Amino acid sequence: MLVSGRRRWLTALLQAQRWPFQPSRDMRLVQFRAPHLTGPHLGLESGNGGGVINLSAFDPTLPKTMIEFLGQGEAALSVAKRKLGVSLLCSNRQPYENEEAVYCYAAAGSPQSAPLSCSGLCRALAAQLPVLPRSEVTFLAPVTRPDKVVCVGMNYVDHCKEQNVPVPKEPIIFSKFSSSIVGPYDEVVLPPESQEVDWEVELAVVIGKKGKHIKATDAMAHVAGFTVAHDVTARDWQMRRNGKQWLLGKTFDTFCPLGPALVTKDSVAGDVILTGTPPGVGVFRKPPVFLKKGDEVQCEIEELGVIVNKVV
Amino acid sequence: MLVSGRRRWLTALLQAQRWPFQPSRDMRLVQFRAPHLTGPHLGLESGNGGGVINLSAFDPTLPKTMIEFLGQGEAALSVAKRKLGVSLLCSNRQPYENEEAVYCYAAAGSPQSAPLSCSGLCRALAAQLPVLPRSEVTFLAPVTRPDKVVCVGMNYVDHCKEQNVPVPKEPIIFSKFSSSIVGPYDEVVLPPESQEVDWEVELAVVIGKKGKHIKATDAMAHVAGFTVAHDVTARDWQMRRNGKQWLLGKTFDTFCPLGPALVTKDSVAGDVILTGTPPGVGVFRKPPVFLKKGDEVQCEIEELGVIVNKVV
Repeated sequence: MLVSGRRRWLTALLQAQRWPFQPSRDMRLVQFRAPHLTGPHLGLESGNGGGVINLSAFDPTLPKTMIEFLGQGEAALSVAKRKLGVSLLCSNRQPYENEEAVYCYAAAGSPQSAPLSCSGLCRALAAQLPVLPRSEVTFLAPVTRPDKVVCVGMNYVDHCKEQNVPVPKEPIIFSKFSSSIVGPYDEVVLPPESQEVDWEVELAVVIGKKGKHIKATDAMAHVAGFTVAHDVTARDWQMRRNGKQWLLGKTFDTFCPLGPALVTKDSVAGDVILTGTPPGVGVFRKPPVFLKKGDEVQCEIEELGVIVNKVV
Repeated sequence: MLVSGRRRWLTALLQAQRWPFQPSRDMRLVQFRAPHLTGPHLGLESGNGGGVINLSAFDPTLPKTMIEFLGQGEAALSVAKRKLGVSLLCSNRQPYENEEAVYCYAAAGSPQSAPLSCSGLCRALAAQLPVLPRSEVTFLAPVTRPDKVVCVGMNYVDHCKEQNVPVPKEPIIFSKFSSSIVGPYDEVVLPPESQEVDWEVELAVVIGKKGKHIKATDAMAHVAGFTVAHDVTARDWQMRRNGKQWLLGKTFDTFCPLGPALVTKDSVAGDVILTGTPPGVGVFRKPPVFLKKGDEVQCEIEELGVIVNKVV
C-alpha cells in the first residue's frame, strides 16, 4: 500500500483475524450518475481506473444506493453475482491487462470456489457487457449519507512523531458529519472561515453489518470493504478554536472526498471509519504548508485507487 | 420555561428574530407505534400529555416518518392541516382543559388567521377524532435517524460557573451519533465501560430547512420546532479519556432520549440541535452524584413536555 507508516489499529484488527487483504480479488462497487440515467445509480468499476457497469441494467430490482445495497446484506450481493455471473467477476479483474493474474469464480459466484483460469471466457463475455466509459460517468462517493463517519486520530506512530506528541494508549475517536462527503474527483471548497486547510490521506473501512461489543477475532465479518478517504482538516479550527473539540475543523462541506470504489472483501449497513493519516500533512512541515485555491490533491492507496480533488 | 439559567445562544437567536416563543399555539408532532399498526407512524399529540391522533388515518399518502415529513416542507404540513381542518387544530389546543385559552384558526389552517373562540365547535369535532389513548401507544423519539445531532456546550452562564470554567467567547459545538437517540420514555442503559454517567436536560431545536451562512435574523425560518432532550453523558469518557474529545462520552446507545413531541412553530430537513444544559448536573455536586441502576430521570421544559427515562 502507498499509505505508509504503521497502521496500528487496522493492522491489529487484520492480524487478529488472520485475514489476508487481497483487494485485487474483490468487487469494486461505485455510485455514479450518467447523462442518460435519472438519479444516482449503483455500478461496478471494471478494475481500478476502468469503466463502469450499471448494476440496475442487469436487475432493476437491485437497490439504487449503496446504503440500501449494504442494508440488504449478502442477499443483494448474491443477486448481483448470480445475475452477472462469471462474466462480471472476470471483467472486474481486468482480464486484458494481466491475463496471468486472472482468476474467476464459478458462475454461481461462490467466493469459496477454486480459482480457474478463464481469460478466454472473460474476454468473450466482457465484450457483451455494457461498460460505460469513465468519461461518460460522474463518480459519486461510494457511500453517501451513512449514519456515522467515525474517524480514528493518532493511529500512525509516524504521524504522532511528526507532531511531537506521545502515542496514545487507545484510539482517539472523533467524527465528521456525513454532509461533508463528496465524490472522489469533486472539488474541495476552502471555507472562508479558515486560513489553515490541510490534507490527510486515509484508508477508510466501510461497515456492512451492525454489531456491538464485537470480539476482535469477529470484527472483519462486519466489514463490507475499503475505500480511499481525504480527511480534509481546518487546522485553526481543530487546534485552537471550538474548545479544541475537533468536530468543526473536520466537517466543513466537501471535507470528506471518498472513493472511487468500495472494494469489497466478498462479504457485505454503511458506516464509514477513517483509520487515520500517516505522516506527511502540511501543518507539521517547517514552515507549515496549507492548501490554496488551484491546488490539486491526489490521495492514492495501492489496489484501492486514487481520488483527485481540486481546491477551490 | 423550567429550564432555567441564561440560554445565551438561543436567547440571542430569538431576540435577533423578535420571534415570540408560543409553543402552546403550535402543533405537537409525534412518532409512535401501536399494537394494531405496522411500523412507526406519524401522529399528533392532542395537547401536552394528551392522546395521539394517527395522521395516516386521515391521509395515507402522508409520510410515515418525521424526517420525510420535514423533507417535504410546508407542502406536507399544509396537507395535514387541510385534511384535518379546524377540528385538529382545536383538539390540539386542549379545548376541554382550559376553554378560555382556546383559539383556533380558520379551516384553511393559515396561521395568520385571526384567532377565534370555538370551544363548542372544537368539542363537537374533537369527539369525532380517532384519538388513541396514551396508554395504547409507544412514543418514539419525534425525530429518528437525523443526519446530524449538533450539540452546544457551555451555553449557560450558570453551568459554566457551576464547573468553574470561563464563559467561552463563541459556542462550543460537538455531536452525538443519531444511533444514541431513543424515545421519551425509554430506558437509559448504563454502559459497562463507564462509572460516571450523568444527566443533562436540554431544549432541542429541530431544523426543518437546509441552509448555510444564514443571517441571524433569518435563522428562525430554518427551525421546524422544539423538543425536550436528555443529553446523557459519561463524564469519565468526556473529561479524561479519548484525548478529551467529547464524542464517545456523549454517544453511547440510549444516551439521547428525545420527545415527547416536536412542537412546531408553524413552519416546517430534520437535524437536531441540543442547546446545552443549565446548571444542576451531578458531576459538579459535592460530592459528585452519578446515575445508578433503578434511577428515574425526568426532564421537563414548560409547554414542551416531560420525558422520563429509567436507568437500567
